[in-house]
Amino acid sequence: MYSIGVDIGGMSIKIGLVDDEGVIIKKIQIKTEKDYNQAIKDMVEVVNNILEEEKVSLDEIRGIGIGCPGAVDSKNGIIEYLPNLGWDKVPIKEIIRKQIKTEIMISNDANVAALGEAIYGCAKQYQNSIMLTIGTGVGGGIIIDKKLIEGGWSRGAELGHITLFMDGEQCTCGRKGCIECYASATALITQTKNAMEEDGDSKMWEYCDNDLNNVNGKTAFECSKLGDETAIKVVDKFISYLGESALNMFNIFRPEALIIGGGISGQGKYLTDKIKDYCEKFDYGYKRAPRTEIMTATLGNDAGIIGAAALLR
Amino acid sequence: MYSIGVDIGGMSIKIGLVDDEGVIIKKIQIKTEKDYNQAIKDMVEVVNNILEEEKVSLDEIRGIGIGCPGAVDSKNGIIEYLPNLGWDKVPIKEIIRKQIKTEIMISNDANVAALGEAIYGCAKQYQNSIMLTIGTGVGGGIIIDKKLIEGGWSRGAELGHITLFMDGEQCTCGRKGCIECYASATALITQTKNAMEEDGDSKMWEYCDNDLNNVNGKTAFECSKLGDETAIKVVDKFISYLGESALNMFNIFRPEALIIGGGISGQGKYLTDKIKDYCEKFDYGYKRAPRTEIMTATLGNDAGIIGAAALLR
Repeated sequence: MYSIGVDIGGMSIKIGLVDDEGVIIKKIQIKTEKDYNQAIKDMVEVVNNILEEEKVSLDEIRGIGIGCPGAVDSKNGIIEYLPNLGWDKVPIKEIIRKQIKTEIMISNDANVAALGEAIYGCAKQYQNSIMLTIGTGVGGGIIIDKKLIEGGWSRGAELGHITLFMDGEQCTCGRKGCIECYASATALITQTKNAMEEDGDSKMWEYCDNDLNNVNGKTAFECSKLGDETAIKVVDKFISYLGESALNMFNIFRPEALIIGGGISGQGKYLTDKIKDYCEKFDYGYKRAPRTEIMTATLGNDAGIIGAAALLR
Repeated sequence: MYSIGVDIGGMSIKIGLVDDEGVIIKKIQIKTEKDYNQAIKDMVEVVNNILEEEKVSLDEIRGIGIGCPGAVDSKNGIIEYLPNLGWDKVPIKEIIRKQIKTEIMISNDANVAALGEAIYGCAKQYQNSIMLTIGTGVGGGIIIDKKLIEGGWSRGAELGHITLFMDGEQCTCGRKGCIECYASATALITQTKNAMEEDGDSKMWEYCDNDLNNVNGKTAFECSKLGDETAIKVVDKFISYLGESALNMFNIFRPEALIIGGGISGQGKYLTDKIKDYCEKFDYGYKRAPRTEIMTATLGNDAGIIGAAALLR
């Protein structure tokens, strides 16, 4: 059997035919039209074309899984609100069902990414896994007994919005001191810039051509590998934020796997070893608790398509 | 049908016959013997006596549910470790099954309390609920789709051990700044005493007969109702800790109900209204999110028996 995975983004919609091993057989990317009726029409056309070209009948697909950013009512198949596109209460399931008679599933993009890793990716041998996606913000996904836990109204799993420092830095969500304010890529970039401004001799200046605008999520990590003391301090502090966030996840879910996603996951073992070392200091929660494996996501750019397809499993 | 609920505590074991409405038909309390073989033998005898006296056959009971403090391996029916009694890896399910041929279920006491409220208590009309038990520490229970979520190895749901202030007060768990350090009854008592020491004119002194040893979880709450400014400040601060903890739960689980248990739940609407008022300040997470009802637990002293019986549902 196959599934169709659809990854709706603000700029593009990626659509793929995925087999039961999580391998993409065919994928097509189209521009996201702002008018949702047009966007869905384009999407349906691509799905039909892929099925025709690959000679796959509707009977051979489990259905269409859709991941999209913003708020999603997965029970009723409605995109509640997609800020970048201004989509408001779009009954996407109903619209597609009128044109393609198959199962339609929908969920938030962070949830879908976690499910993809749990079913087809780095955590496929585990029943329980938690994913933290480190990007502009910090996204979360909860998998218990191989099932996605979205929370009530499909609106939970906002794992970036747990306090790390009550009364701390202002978060975009309105609260203060959320994990996202300290452990996102955005936060890391700010932390890196601040450290550079205090140390004109840091190798990080050379790494980014003496221009703070060139600082990104890699700057501190790469320069810490070169032995730059200031970069090491930035990384150590950032790891402490990630480590405390990880320990919170362990105590809430005691998952078998904690998956770190987002651009920072490119740091691989360098990153996960440091998080492990941080957590090892704590008997309760990590060292003497049943062991959670800490790993980086493996599905990369295809996570959206593969994860969406996993909604049908 | 009926279920047997067993509430194992460090001092006593409470055993009850519970009907399918969650009503206790008969209950008996016995002393907890330190020797686990003796304790289990006593328990089995009481179960058999209750069934005989109430003329209920084994066919008429769903099974025996057991709640106990400490670490529990619910999958295999083993009490991993019960600190107060020194019980270590007690295969309680296997031992009882040799004597009574019925279903045996076991879980941690905080989980069982949450399940009891979700099945038979204040949250019975909701599918998803979270319970925070405010006592010596802060315990947690997670109910999703009316099912208990214990986390991997039945060792998650430690909702008191999430950071409120990273690098904050030392927690007994080894980390710093856990919710438990600020929002437990123990913490409230410390906060109350500290405030009294700074204000010799506070009505709280009179309330506790000018003796700090008489301070308890009610002191600040009751004196705040009398208009004592210092007591009001203590309560407001404590509510902010509970409020932030509640918002964390909302963002993780977006439950339909948040249940506050433990002695402090005796404050009822006075407490929950204050938590609501605190949370109302936040659009994202509460005010403009799908609404979580905040309520106090209702099963009281029988929560252990009724919750344990609910494990069979």
